Order: sequence, then C-alpha cells, then structure tokens
Amino acid sequence: MNTVGFTWQAAPAATEMEVLALDWLAQLLRLPPSFMNHTGAAGRGTGGGVILGTTSEAMLVTLVAARDAALSRSGSQGVSGLPRLAVYAADQTHSTFFKACRLAGFDPANIRSIPTGPETDYALDPARLLEVMQADVDAGLVPTYVCATVGTTSSNAVDPVGAIADVAAVFNAWVHIDAAYAGSACICPEFRHHLDGVERVDSISMSPHKWLLTCLDCTCLWVRDTHRLTDSLETNPEYLKNDASESGNVTDLKDMQVGVGRRFRGLKLWMVMRTYGSAKLQEHIRSDVAMAKMFEDAVRDDDRFEVVVPRNFALVCFRIKPHGGCMTEEDADEANRELMERLNRTGKAYLAHTVVGDRFVLRFAVGSSLQEERHVRSAWELINKTTTEIMQEQIVVE
Amino acid sequence: MNTVGFTWQAAPAATEMEVLALDWLAQLLRLPPSFMNHTGAAGRGTGGGVILGTTSEAMLVTLVAARDAALSRSGSQGVSGLPRLAVYAADQTHSTFFKACRLAGFDPANIRSIPTGPETDYALDPARLLEVMQADVDAGLVPTYVCATVGTTSSNAVDPVGAIADVAAVFNAWVHIDAAYAGSACICPEFRHHLDGVERVDSISMSPHKWLLTCLDCTCLWVRDTHRLTDSLETNPEYLKNDASESGNVTDLKDMQVGVGRRFRGLKLWMVMRTYGSAKLQEHIRSDVAMAKMFEDAVRDDDRFEVVVPRNFALVCFRIKPHGGCMTEEDADEANRELMERLNRTGKAYLAHTVVGDRFVLRFAVGSSLQEERHVRSAWELINKTTTEIMQEQIVVE
Repeated sequence: MNTVGFTWQAAPAATEMEVLALDWLAQLLRLPPSFMNHTGAAGRGTGGGVILGTTSEAMLVTLVAARDAALSRSGSQGVSGLPRLAVYAADQTHSTFFKACRLAGFDPANIRSIPTGPETDYALDPARLLEVMQADVDAGLVPTYVCATVGTTSSNAVDPVGAIADVAAVFNAWVHIDAAYAGSACICPEFRHHLDGVERVDSISMSPHKWLLTCLDCTCLWVRDTHRLTDSLETNPEYLKNDASESGNVTDLKDMQVGVGRRFRGLKLWMVMRTYGSAKLQEHIRSDVAMAKMFEDAVRDDDRFEVVVPRNFALVCFRIKPHGGCMTEEDADEANRELMERLNRTGKAYLAHTVVGDRFVLRFAVGSSLQEERHVRSAWELINKTTTEIMQEQIVVE
Repeated sequence: MNTVGFTWQAAPAATEMEVLALDWLAQLLRLPPSFMNHTGAAGRGTGGGVILGTTSEAMLVTLVAARDAALSRSGSQGVSGLPRLAVYAADQTHSTFFKACRLAGFDPANIRSIPTGPETDYALDPARLLEVMQADVDAGLVPTYVCATVGTTSSNAVDPVGAIADVAAVFNAWVHIDAAYAGSACICPEFRHHLDGVERVDSISMSPHKWLLTCLDCTCLWVRDTHRLTDSLETNPEYLKNDASESGNVTDLKDMQVGVGRRFRGLKLWMVMRTYGSAKLQEHIRSDVAMAKMFEDAVRDDDRFEVVVPRNFALVCFRIKPHGGCMTEEDADEANRELMERLNRTGKAYLAHTVVGDRFVLRFAVGSSLQEERHVRSAWELINKTTTEIMQEQIVVE
C-alpha cells in the first residue's frame, strides 16, 4: 500500500498491474491497439498508458511533448520559437486546459478559446477550428495542439473527435481527447460512437474516479507513441540507474508524468475491474443514465422548465423558463439562482450551476454510487415544490 | 476518504484540516510566521501552505510563479521574454528540478547546473552562484529562480540556505528550498540550523512521505506570499463559483497546485501528527540517525572502507577504497559495484549507489519504519563477509 514505483525496478508488480489494468480498460473502450502496452500476438507496440492524478496533469505532459516536438520540427534553438506556437480548444473546454497551457509556457495570446453556440450544442465546430488554425498559420504561428472534449463539464457537450483530428492533421498538430467524465460511458457500445476517430488522435485521457466506481485519484492517459512523451519527460539520474531500465524491456512510468514518486494507483483500477467486471460496469453507467433520463422526462413534462441542451449522458441541464408574459430571461436567471440556493440549503439535494448562452442553468448530475431512483424522485419533488413557492412569492410581489 | 476538495466549499473540513496540519508542521520546523496560514494573534498573514503529490510539483508551481513574476517585472508581452530567464541549482540537485524547469518552458540553455566538489562536500558554493548569476546579467539574462537543496538525494549535501538567499536577493530571484528528505530531520532542534536563513526565501517544500512516517504522497509546500502562486495558478470557471470563494475568507487549494481535483491528504498528515506527537516524531528521527551513525562507526573502524562525505542525516555514503598497492580507483569502483550487486541479490539488504567526484559510491540509508539496530548489524555483517569474499577472489585472480 505504500509502494513507490517510480521505476519498474522499484516496484515491478505495481508497474505491471498498472499497465495491465490500463490495457483492460483500453480494450473495454475499444481504443485502437496502438494505444496499448501489449497488443496481443503483435507484442509491444509504440503506445501505452499511465495513471496520473488529474486530467490537468494529462494535459500538461502531452502539451509539453507537443510543444517540444513543434519546437524541434521548426528548428528552434531552445525556446526561442515558443512565442510562435498556438494551441486550440472550444470555449467550453475545462478551465484547467487553459491553465495547463500557461504552465507549459505557451503565450496566453496564442491560447485560442474558440466560441461555440447553440447551433452545435456548444461543441467545437471543425469548420471554425480550421479557419482559426489557418489564420494563425497565415500570421506566422505554428498550430501545435488541439484539445477535444468528450463530455464537457459545463453541459456535457461532445466535440466531434474525427472531424477535429482531420483538421489538426492538416497542420500536423497534436490532438488530445479529454474524456474525463464521459469516457466512462464509452465502455458501453451505445455510447462508444462519441470516440469515433480516436484512432487518428495522439492521446486520450479519462478519469475512472469520475464515473467508474474508482476513488480519486485515477486519471488514465494513453498515448499512441510513448516515446513522444518520454523524449520530453525522461530523467536518468545515477541513483536511479538499474539493469531493468537499461535493458529497454520495461516501462519506467516516472517518465510519463510530472513527478518521480508515484503511488500504486494501478491496484485500485485493477480491483475495480476485477470486482465488477465489464458487464456490471456497463450496468452501472446505464443505470445512472436511466435515472438522468427519468429526471429529464419529468422536467420536459413540466412546462415551467426547459431542458437547455440535449442530455448526452447522466447530466441534465435545465432551467425555469420565463413565464407569465412579463418575466424576462434575466428574471428567470434570478429565479433559477434562488431555486438552486434554496435546494442546496436543504441539505437534501445539491445542484451546481453553469452559464451557457449567457443563461444561468441548473445541472442535475447523477453519479453517486449510492444514488437510487427514489433519490431522483424525491429531488424532483423538492425542485417542484420549491419552484412553486418561488413563483407564488413572485406573484405576491408583482 | 473519497472527498474531492478542490475548493474550500467542496470540502471545508478537508481544507481546514490540511491547513491546520501544515501550520502545525511549520511550527515544528520553526518556519517563520510568514509561511503560515494562521499566525496566531496576528491573524491571517500573506503566506500559506498546500499539500502536493511530489517535490516535482512543488518546484513546478513555484517556478511558474517566479517565471510569471519575472516576465511581468521585465515588461514582457506574453512569453517573448522567456528565452532570457535563467534558473540555478547545484549539479547535485535532484534531476526532477531540471525536468520541472523544462516543463515550465525555461530554455534548456539557461538552466544552470553549477558544479560542486569535495571542497564544499558537494554543496552549492554561494560565491560561485554569485559569479554565474552576475555573468548571466552581464549577458543580458534575467536570474529568476534558485533552488537550494537541504539534503541532496545523492549524498545528503546541504546547500547554505542563508548565503544563497543573500546572493539571490541581489538579483531579485525567487529562492526555493527543496528539503524533501532532510526537512523531516529539521523538526529536531539539533538539525534545525540546516534551515537557517529560511526567513529570507520565497518557498520551501519537504515530504513527510520520505521520513516522517506518512504514506506517499505527501509533499508540503509553504510559500511566503500565496498571491504570488495564485496569480499564476488561479482558475475561476462558472461551475466552481461559490459564495465562500467570493468572500475572500477561505483558501481554495486548487489554486496552489497543477490540477483541480485533490485528495484529502491533510487527513493522513493530521493523523500522523496527532498519533505520534512532536516528541515521538523527533525520537523517530533520532533513532534513525543513531542507527546510521552506528553503521558509519563500523565502516570507519574497518580500513578497507572509506566514508566518502560527512554523514549529515541517516544516509552513509561509503565505498571500498583501493588497497593492496596495485588497486586503482577504477578497480575499487568495480569492486563496489560487485559488492552492491551481490548484496542486493541476497534479498537481505538493498543498497542504491551514486557517483560523487567520479567515484562509484554505495548508499546505506536508514529510514524504514520497521528498521531496528539488529538489521543494521546484520547488514554490516553481510557487507563485511561479502567484501572479504570479493577481495579473496581478487587475490586469487591476481
């Protein structure tokens, strides 16, 4: 439990179990063999995985690898070419992506947050990406990295992976998929299409600690060519030199992460997969999605509310809509904020909000491992009752 | 146990316990009040701490803060000034420092690894640091960050903190102390002098998971001015906005680390400190040091061996020295390597090596919580016997 497996030699079992669990999960996700450590009869490929602490770290290490490759391609000495590198993501991408870009030294002026709107359900529009990348090339910049999100935090938007990979390929830019939350759903065949095109990207990360019954922290990162990571991240101090590493036959996972020390995170992922098995894990996802669908149906049946974006997974983005003729969208925003605050004060439900299309939106997320249909029903009753109270008070005020 | 305390609001108890445990440990280390979250009657200061996963992360986040401050001071737009920034450390500094500098985008050509030698017991020479920094300024570079190590991995060298801070102050460079291992010893008054001058540095990190009875991962980072960190690391997406954060009265620890998600690491540090108490923690350090001293005395009493650098803590760096007239230093290197390999093959002892002053050196480290004097004695007997065997074989060969 206190193993410190920075090198394979420091804890062979910890490394092997991590690599094994990652291969299993890659198989469940139907990732192409190029992302796996062991590719069956074909033996060891160029790809592989590593378990990190957070999506932020997965983004950071791949950004650094892409940065160094772009600098090397452009023949820059040192980092003198860095101010010319540009990176891309939709404006719905998690804020930690923009932070990771700054950590890696990208110029804030070249970190593109591409606007999205309701016409794509807040997903990145590949045509718009192409325009922005081409404009940057015309201005002398070097497109380096595109982050596509499968299941944004805010509203679970899904960027079109394949189309984005096609655009990025024109510019030889690295493509990373952040599937932190919704990646878990992609173990079910009916959701797997959200990853279509993954065979053309450079890396993908998802976090079983979000929705696959695994405790924090467990973010799985797979890359198609591990050397592109280790070229940037490898260290080889004298006191860590050992025969196993020098044989080239083992994986030293410290060379795929920020730090040197690392916990035995493979154990918990291995245990989750062995304990539940693929059928039960799929059942867990489907059960959560069914509960979210149940809630969505209730919202749709009540004409005081609207569902703001299509529900893709187990998150329902909804709001009280303007009603009664004289209620503006701003008034509705205020009513929704009041609803959220009253709900959260009860201690019986907890909703977080977001803003999409300038509107204040409530997020009903199913995901706790102890959640049952009766909780969804009672939450809906509470929302229903509280909304009625808020509306009656408004009528009194008016 | 599966709390996700990115913001204070997401898990108030997790944040408060982490901050409390860090203040306790800061008091034990007699860090100046400027590094604490709560400074008694004086209330909240400018400083504070955070628990991270590894020293690498502590280095990375402080490097980024120092980088951004230097760019801002020099009036650079974006990162155009980055190729002019320079960073400094002794050549004995952990390799992860040089990796963290590359992650943060510093130009590899400006990452100074300052040579050390036996004349300072492999510690950084402040006079040499001054020369190198001044030469960089003369060449148009901007000294940005100096990393001082208290207890290097290789040989437990101690860089002179106060003198380094004085040199760095001339150039307005950030000074970080990496006390990952030996910081734990500094809870004992007799070792505290190794941190003298800490009141003049900007940040310090140490890892209770190395030598203070805490499981991996637990790296404590304290900074004198938390705003210098959060200016670079803060994110504020809509879905994380909350009244507590907006009040300015709480600490959102996500803004002092790479990622957003974070485990409840404060709990284990709090439990270690409550379970043992300061007296028992000091006793643990002293017991390990006494065992190392016992081993050192045995080595010194045997004229086949030499102790290569003074033992500062619980690491003894020793080697078989050339003997018999015709044995060269290179022959001795080979004998030491052979000794290490034979010892490690027994499964009864495990020694790692290093190279200092071009010589292959064995490292006898006391630190396991289950280690007792009898283990040290039996390890010495094994070393003694194996050395005799190796020497006899050599005589036969000769």
